[in-house]
Amino acid sequence: MNLILIYPEEISDQQVELTDRRAEHIRKVLRSREGDSVRVGVVNGRIGLGRILKLDRTKVALALNLCEKPASAPPLDLILAVPRPIMLKRVLAQAASMGVSRIFLINANRVEKSFFKATLIQSNDFSEPLRLGLEQAIDTRMPEISVHPRFRPFAEDLLPEIIHNTPTRLTADPAGEPILPLVHGKPLAERIILAIGPEGGWVDFELTMFKEQGFASFSMGPRILRVDTAVPALLAQLSLLRQIPPLSS
Amino acid sequence: MNLILIYPEEISDQQVELTDRRAEHIRKVLRSREGDSVRVGVVNGRIGLGRILKLDRTKVALALNLCEKPASAPPLDLILAVPRPIMLKRVLAQAASMGVSRIFLINANRVEKSFFKATLIQSNDFSEPLRLGLEQAIDTRMPEISVHPRFRPFAEDLLPEIIHNTPTRLTADPAGEPILPLVHGKPLAERIILAIGPEGGWVDFELTMFKEQGFASFSMGPRILRVDTAVPALLAQLSLLRQIPPLSS
Repeated sequence: MNLILIYPEEISDQQVELTDRRAEHIRKVLRSREGDSVRVGVVNGRIGLGRILKLDRTKVALALNLCEKPASAPPLDLILAVPRPIMLKRVLAQAASMGVSRIFLINANRVEKSFFKATLIQSNDFSEPLRLGLEQAIDTRMPEISVHPRFRPFAEDLLPEIIHNTPTRLTADPAGEPILPLVHGKPLAERIILAIGPEGGWVDFELTMFKEQGFASFSMGPRILRVDTAVPALLAQLSLLRQIPPLSS
Repeated sequence: MNLILIYPEEISDQQVELTDRRAEHIRKVLRSREGDSVRVGVVNGRIGLGRILKLDRTKVALALNLCEKPASAPPLDLILAVPRPIMLKRVLAQAASMGVSRIFLINANRVEKSFFKATLIQSNDFSEPLRLGLEQAIDTRMPEISVHPRFRPFAEDLLPEIIHNTPTRLTADPAGEPILPLVHGKPLAERIILAIGPEGGWVDFELTMFKEQGFASFSMGPRILRVDTAVPALLAQLSLLRQIPPLSS
């Protein structure tokens, strides 16, 4: 926890009182005392310091001084075939820590039906793993998550609007072209959307649906990676490619 | 499990008999039958097919046809400050799945002493997480792992020999230079060694020790990532940089 993340509704008179694991973190990990300051951020809001007014066994009271504006929303959206429950939390935290604007959790042919019955998906509350990611990365921008249990309505009805302002559209597919010749011949546009398939990969029908909407499919190489390795790897490569001027081909 | 990984000593007369989770995988996940073939690889050896001679509740017997040579050892070594036990297994599997030649698990100032007491480290047998990574990525090259409980003897006595044939030496450090200007001005050498620090980062003394031996410290950006996100992200960026010609600066 590199940032104490609080919700706007927890703030009253520029102060906040914590009683949960955040208070425990301040007491036991940071070992702070009254008068010390800790780094605080407001969900989807500013970052700054919280000066400890009071600290005892049950609670920690902070006076807030939120001087930094939040970073702008990351120019990247993720379409993710729903992974198995044990992976889902981890991948959401990873994505939040690396910076993603929206995450569309979708069905695909090779997604097991049972994955949609995961407690996390049923609850439709993804704030816990997302908070873990933001606390780690010192960010306050909570990715927006939506769940789409049917592939076709998602791809046909929603996708066109989702990608409307996103010129760079990519599908990760182990059978696709190596990323560079394909993507790096032209400049990476500011805004990217990346679709990552299920363990067994996308089926042809799904790849075709993406392709018809301007998605280029690419591969990171012959190695098949687990989703908790593929997500950070792909996001890191795209982040790097943004920084490199395109190759003249 | 995209590959049934076996040890050379399990093979007898070009056949192998499996009774453990590999047999269960063939029965329950692949749902194979006698006469079917499954993808098989030998640790540090060839890849090919195993034709199912016999399959029952207790065992699976395979006739091996190992026609593919293994990929050459990945030209990348990793120095990793020992992460907390819950992360260690996961990170070793991730590294094996992405392709790493040697992993040096070392101590550092901000590594908690207790991390060295992890069962996995005490056993000095890392084959389980490494196998998971290789089975996932369809690779047979088992990374070599060594544990170094004292930083200074490692850095002073062993490191010079370790890096002898490795021109590109990098230290991941959130306070370092952004990767591109630093690394990408000159070609990335074939062989790379990458040092990834503990949760709280390297201390100055450690960075100096690395620097004195030709390590350049670089940053992936201001976000602080957990080690199970940082390892795939950094390896993926280096893999991508190898494919791009250097910028003319």
